[in-house]
Amino acid sequence: MEIKHTITFLPSNRQVIVAPGTNLIKAARDAGLHVNASCGGAGVCGKCRVIVERGDVDGGRSEKLSPVEYASGYRQACVASVSGDLTVRIPQESGISGGALATMVPERHRARMHVFEVDSLKEEGIFAPPVEKFCLELTPPSAVDNRADVGRMLQGLADQYDLHRMVTGLSVLRKIRGVMRENDFLITVTVGRPVNELFKSHIINVQSGCWSSRNFALAIDIGTTTVYGQLLDVNTGKVLIEEGDYNSQISYGEDVISRIMYAERPEGLLRMSELVVGTINGIIAKLIERPVPPYGLTEQPITIDEINSITIAANTTMTHLFLGLEPENIRRAPYVPVSTFFPPLRASDLGLNLPPHTLALLYPAVSSYVGGDIVAGVMGSGMYRTELLTLYIDIGTNAEIVIGNRDWLVCAACSAGPAFEGGGITHGMRAATGAIEDFSLNPQTYEPMNLTIGNKPPIGICGSGLLIIVASLFENGLLNQAGKFNAIECPRLRQGRNGREFVLAWEQDAGVDHDITINEVDIENFIRAKAAIFAGAKTLIEEVGLQMSDLEQVILAGAFGSYIDLDCAMAVGLLPEFDPAKVVYVGNGSLMGARMSGLSNHIRKDVVEVVRKMTSFELSEVVSFKDQYVASMFLPHTDMNLFPRIAKRLMSSFADDVE
Amino acid sequence: MEIKHTITFLPSNRQVIVAPGTNLIKAARDAGLHVNASCGGAGVCGKCRVIVERGDVDGGRSEKLSPVEYASGYRQACVASVSGDLTVRIPQESGISGGALATMVPERHRARMHVFEVDSLKEEGIFAPPVEKFCLELTPPSAVDNRADVGRMLQGLADQYDLHRMVTGLSVLRKIRGVMRENDFLITVTVGRPVNELFKSHIINVQSGCWSSRNFALAIDIGTTTVYGQLLDVNTGKVLIEEGDYNSQISYGEDVISRIMYAERPEGLLRMSELVVGTINGIIAKLIERPVPPYGLTEQPITIDEINSITIAANTTMTHLFLGLEPENIRRAPYVPVSTFFPPLRASDLGLNLPPHTLALLYPAVSSYVGGDIVAGVMGSGMYRTELLTLYIDIGTNAEIVIGNRDWLVCAACSAGPAFEGGGITHGMRAATGAIEDFSLNPQTYEPMNLTIGNKPPIGICGSGLLIIVASLFENGLLNQAGKFNAIECPRLRQGRNGREFVLAWEQDAGVDHDITINEVDIENFIRAKAAIFAGAKTLIEEVGLQMSDLEQVILAGAFGSYIDLDCAMAVGLLPEFDPAKVVYVGNGSLMGARMSGLSNHIRKDVVEVVRKMTSFELSEVVSFKDQYVASMFLPHTDMNLFPRIAKRLMSSFADDVE
Repeated sequence: MEIKHTITFLPSNRQVIVAPGTNLIKAARDAGLHVNASCGGAGVCGKCRVIVERGDVDGGRSEKLSPVEYASGYRQACVASVSGDLTVRIPQESGISGGALATMVPERHRARMHVFEVDSLKEEGIFAPPVEKFCLELTPPSAVDNRADVGRMLQGLADQYDLHRMVTGLSVLRKIRGVMRENDFLITVTVGRPVNELFKSHIINVQSGCWSSRNFALAIDIGTTTVYGQLLDVNTGKVLIEEGDYNSQISYGEDVISRIMYAERPEGLLRMSELVVGTINGIIAKLIERPVPPYGLTEQPITIDEINSITIAANTTMTHLFLGLEPENIRRAPYVPVSTFFPPLRASDLGLNLPPHTLALLYPAVSSYVGGDIVAGVMGSGMYRTELLTLYIDIGTNAEIVIGNRDWLVCAACSAGPAFEGGGITHGMRAATGAIEDFSLNPQTYEPMNLTIGNKPPIGICGSGLLIIVASLFENGLLNQAGKFNAIECPRLRQGRNGREFVLAWEQDAGVDHDITINEVDIENFIRAKAAIFAGAKTLIEEVGLQMSDLEQVILAGAFGSYIDLDCAMAVGLLPEFDPAKVVYVGNGSLMGARMSGLSNHIRKDVVEVVRKMTSFELSEVVSFKDQYVASMFLPHTDMNLFPRIAKRLMSSFADDVE
Repeated sequence: MEIKHTITFLPSNRQVIVAPGTNLIKAARDAGLHVNASCGGAGVCGKCRVIVERGDVDGGRSEKLSPVEYASGYRQACVASVSGDLTVRIPQESGISGGALATMVPERHRARMHVFEVDSLKEEGIFAPPVEKFCLELTPPSAVDNRADVGRMLQGLADQYDLHRMVTGLSVLRKIRGVMRENDFLITVTVGRPVNELFKSHIINVQSGCWSSRNFALAIDIGTTTVYGQLLDVNTGKVLIEEGDYNSQISYGEDVISRIMYAERPEGLLRMSELVVGTINGIIAKLIERPVPPYGLTEQPITIDEINSITIAANTTMTHLFLGLEPENIRRAPYVPVSTFFPPLRASDLGLNLPPHTLALLYPAVSSYVGGDIVAGVMGSGMYRTELLTLYIDIGTNAEIVIGNRDWLVCAACSAGPAFEGGGITHGMRAATGAIEDFSLNPQTYEPMNLTIGNKPPIGICGSGLLIIVASLFENGLLNQAGKFNAIECPRLRQGRNGREFVLAWEQDAGVDHDITINEVDIENFIRAKAAIFAGAKTLIEEVGLQMSDLEQVILAGAFGSYIDLDCAMAVGLLPEFDPAKVVYVGNGSLMGARMSGLSNHIRKDVVEVVRKMTSFELSEVVSFKDQYVASMFLPHTDMNLFPRIAKRLMSSFADDVE
C-alpha cells in the first residue's frame, strides 16, 4: 500500500494528503495556500519560513534561520520535505494578507494626481469606444424588398449611421432572424471598431429592441503580484466598480523569471495560463455580482452578456502567460518575446468567463521588459501627447523608465531587484498589514517611530517604509554615504550576522517573535536598487543628448510610486532633484491605460504609433550605463553637484556638528 | 416493464429496438437506413413502400398500394407504426444505391464540355489562391536585433515577398517561438488573403522548414440530395481526388421545404446541421485516406493539417442548414434568407474535422432560391466574363435560370417540381442502378427499348429517361400536344388508374414485381415541370427586352443537365430551339465554381460584384409569367413559331401519315 501523509496548515486549518518526500512549499500549493518564496523555491531568499507545530520534516535548516528559531520549530519550507503527518503554521510574514491590495494614491498625493478626463476626450471628439451599440428601426421585408436579414441590417447601419465595411460573424448570423422579428424589426447592433477606418468593423452582437444605453466594458491590469479590474460604463466613461486580487501564479514564484521557469516545465505554461485566467475570472465574477451604485440608466443589474470588451494591460511576461505564449526567450539573451502586438481576440477563446461576442483587446508591448503595462501608463497618463519633457517611472520588482514627450520616447527596464517590494531585505515584506510604511527618527535619541499599514504591531518593512528608513538614517548621520553605519553610540545599533544593524522594533513591540532590524546588507541591496533606477534614467536621458535638469515633468506610477516620499527619494538619490510641483502621480498607470483604451478607439489607434515610436534601450548593452551605476552606488551619488539641495542640507548638518 | 419491439431491416440486416407506436420511417432512420420519402413522410408521395416479411404493422395502407401489393406485404412506411417484432425489407426502388452519385458529363457530351482552364487563369495572372504559403529564411535574433518573433516574421514577409497588413491569430502566436527555432529560423507561413487588398491578410499557420510546395484545399458542393468533394493541389490547380455521398439529411425529406420544416422543430436545426456536417466529414475522411496518384511533390501522403481552405457552394437552404442559420423565412413569402453573404469562418467552428487554421469559404447567394450553387456555376462556367448572351440552366428539384453576360445578369428559380428527379412520376426514381435513362420506340410496333443505368432489369424511370420517353411517345404520335395518348391500337397502351398509360416494361422484364408504366398524370407532371422552366427563361429574357432567338450560348449544369438529350429537350419544349453547337456542358457547376474560388482569390473577389449584379426575379410576382406558363403547357408549346424545326418535323410526319 502506498504511504501518504496528512499535512494540516494553520491558521487556515486546510489539510492536504501527500506522498512522503513532497516538498513543503509544494504541499502548501496543493492546499491552495501561499507561502512567500521570492526566489521561486530556490532556497536562497529565506522568505518561506514556516513553523512545524506537530511532527517534523526532513531538511528545512538554512543559514537564514537562527539556532533558536530552528529549535522553536521554524523551518525553511522550500528545502523541507514531508516524512510524516504534520501540522504546519504559515506565519503572517510568510503568507499574504488583503492589505497589499490597496493601490490608491494616498491622500497626501491626491492634489498632484493625474485625473483621467473623460469630458476632455469627449470635447476633443476622440471618445469613440472600440465597441459601440447602435439602435436600428428597420422596415419589415415585403415582396418588393425581400433582401436577406443581414443585408437589411447593413443597409440600416449605412442609412441611419453612415457605417460601412461591416463583417458579420457566425454567432450573429445564427441569431439575427429571431432577434429581428422579436421586436418588430427594432434591433440593437454591437459593432467592434478596427483601429484603422480602412479595415472592416465587426458586428459582434445583435439584440432585440433598443439597448444602446447599456454598453459595458472591463479594464484589467495583470500585475506579477496583483490583478485589478474595473467595470466601465462605456457611454459615460465612468468606473462603476473596481476589484483586485492576488495573481494566483504567485504560489509559483514572486517574480517573472520564476514564472517563466515554471512555464518551461511540461504543462507548466498551461498551468500558468489557467491560474491567471482563474484570477481574472474571479475578479469578473466579483465585478458582476456587486451591485452598481444606482445612477443613470444602469439601475437594472448588469449581466455578463452586456460586457462587450475587456481591455488588458500587463507586462510582457504576464501577457505571454495569460495568452499561453511560450515565454522562454524573454528570460534569455537577447530577450526576444513571441510578440509585442496582439490582435483582437475572442475573450471566450482565452478561457475567460465572458460571452462569445466579447472582444479581448491586449495592450501592445515595446520589448521583453518594457511591457504593455508601461505602454498603458504612457497612454493613460497622457505622456504620449504632452509637450513637456517627461520622465515616467514605474517601480516594481523591475523598474521601467520612459523619457520623452509627444515627439519622441525612449525607454528601458532596470533590474532594480525586489528591494522595493520587500525582497532581499531581511525583514522586508510587501505593503500588507503590519508593514512599516512610514518612519521617523528622533534626531537626538535615535528612537524610531514606526507607522504600519493597518496600525498593527510591525512585522516587517515594505518598500515605501524602507525608503524613508534609509533616508532618515542617512540624513540623521547614522549612515554614511557608502551606506555603512557610522560609529555612533546608540543602543539600537549593534553587530548582526549581516554587518551592523539598526533595531527598528524590539521583539516585545513587534507583531512577530523577533526584533525587526535593518542591516548593512539590506541597505546595500536598497542602494543597488536605487542606483540601477537613477543610473538607468540618467543613461537614457544622456543617450538622447539631454540632462536630468532638462526634465519638465515626472510621472510616478505603480503602488510604490504612489506612496513614495519625494524628499526621501531625492535624499537617497533614487530620483533626481526637481521641483515637487513637477510631479504627477498616476497610481496604477497600467489599469488607467487599459480603461482609456477600452473607452477610446482613438487611443487604441494612437498606441500603435506610440509603441513604434518608443525606442527601447537594453541598458546592459549601453557602455556608459555601468559607470553611471557605479557612480550612483552612494547616498545620494558620488557627484554631489547633481544633488545641490541635499548637499546643502548635509553641509549645514555638518556645520551643526562642528558648532 | 416498458415494452419494446425489435425491427430487423433487410437486405442490410440492421436491427433497431423501438417503442410500440413508432413510425416505420422513424425506425428506419434510427437504424441509419434510408427510405425514399419525397413528401417528407406526409403520406402522399407513395415512395416509401416497404415489404413486411415477418410480423405486421398498424396502418401502412394507402391508395398508392394495389390490393395485390398490400396482400403480399407491401406497406407505406410513413403511415405504418410498430406493434410487434418485425422483419421489414426495403425494396431497391425505395432505398438508395451508389449509382446516382455519377455526375460526370457522359461521353457523348464531352466534346462540348466546359474545361476549367488553370493555365489560362495563370496566364491572366489571376491564379492567386485565397490561401498561399511562403517560405522565409530569417536572421536569428541578436543583441542588436532582438525584435519579437512575430515582428521578425512580418519583416521577413515584407522584405522577401512585399506582403503587408498582416494579422496573426492566437494559434500562430502560441506556436511560432518553437517553430522558428526548430529549423534554424527557416519557416513556412500560410497566409489567408482578403478579397480586397485594402483589408488585412491573416497568417493562419506557421510551419518549421520550407513547405510551400504542399498547399492543399477542398472544394465541396452540398446538394439537397448529394454532396461532392474534391481534394485540390492549390499550387497546380489539379483535382487530386473526388468523392461523393448522399446528403444524410435525405432521411428527413427529399426537398428543401421538408428540410426547412424539420429544422423548425426543437433541436431540428441542430440535427440538420449535424447531418450534413457528418456527410462532409465522411467525404473529407475518404479524400484524405485515398492515396493520391503520385506526381510532382505530393508523393508523401497528404495529411489533414495540410488542408488550408475548404470552399463550399450550396443552395441557400443547404448553406443555412450547414451553418446553423434559421431557414424559416426561406419557405415563407416574401422568402427572406438570413444572409446571402458569408464571412470567412474557421472550419473547425462549423464542426468540420479540419485543423483550427483551415478557412471555410462559403459561396454567396443571390436570394432564397438562387443560391451559392448557381452563383458558383456562373463563376465556374465563365458566364460572368463572357461577351456572349448566355442562358444558364441548372435543373434539379428546382430549376434555376440565369440569363446575361459579363455586363448584366438576371436570374430566377422555377418551381419545376421533382419530376426530373423522379418525383411525382408513378415509377419515377433517381438516377440509380436500374433506372431507365435512355429509350427508343419502334415507330411501327411501338415496342420500346429501355436502357438502364448499370444495364439491370428496369426498376423505374430517372429524369433523363423520362424526357426521352415523353419525346419519343410524342414524336411517334402516341401522345398529342396536350400530353394525352392518342387512340392508337397498341398492346402496351391501356387504361390505368391515372388515365391511360403506356407499359414500358412488363413485370417479367422488370427488376420489380410489377409493370413499369408511364401514365397521363405522369406526363402532365412532366409538362408542368418543363413548362415552368421554359416559361421562366422566356419571361426573364423578355423582361430585359430580348428574345429567346437572341441567345448566343446555352450552359447546361447539374446531373440532369449533363445527361439531357438536346433533341428531345427541344422536341418537348423544355429548351428553346437553338444550334446544338451553342451548348456547353459544365457538369456539377457548383463544384466547379467552388474549386475555382478555392484556387483563385480574384474569382472570390469578382463573385461579390457578380452577386450584386445578378438581378433576381420572383417569377410569381411577374405578371406575364402566368401567361407564359399556360402557353408552355403543350408539347412543345402553343406557339409553334417558337419551335420551327419540330413544327416542320411534325408536319412531315403528318404528311407521311397522309401518304
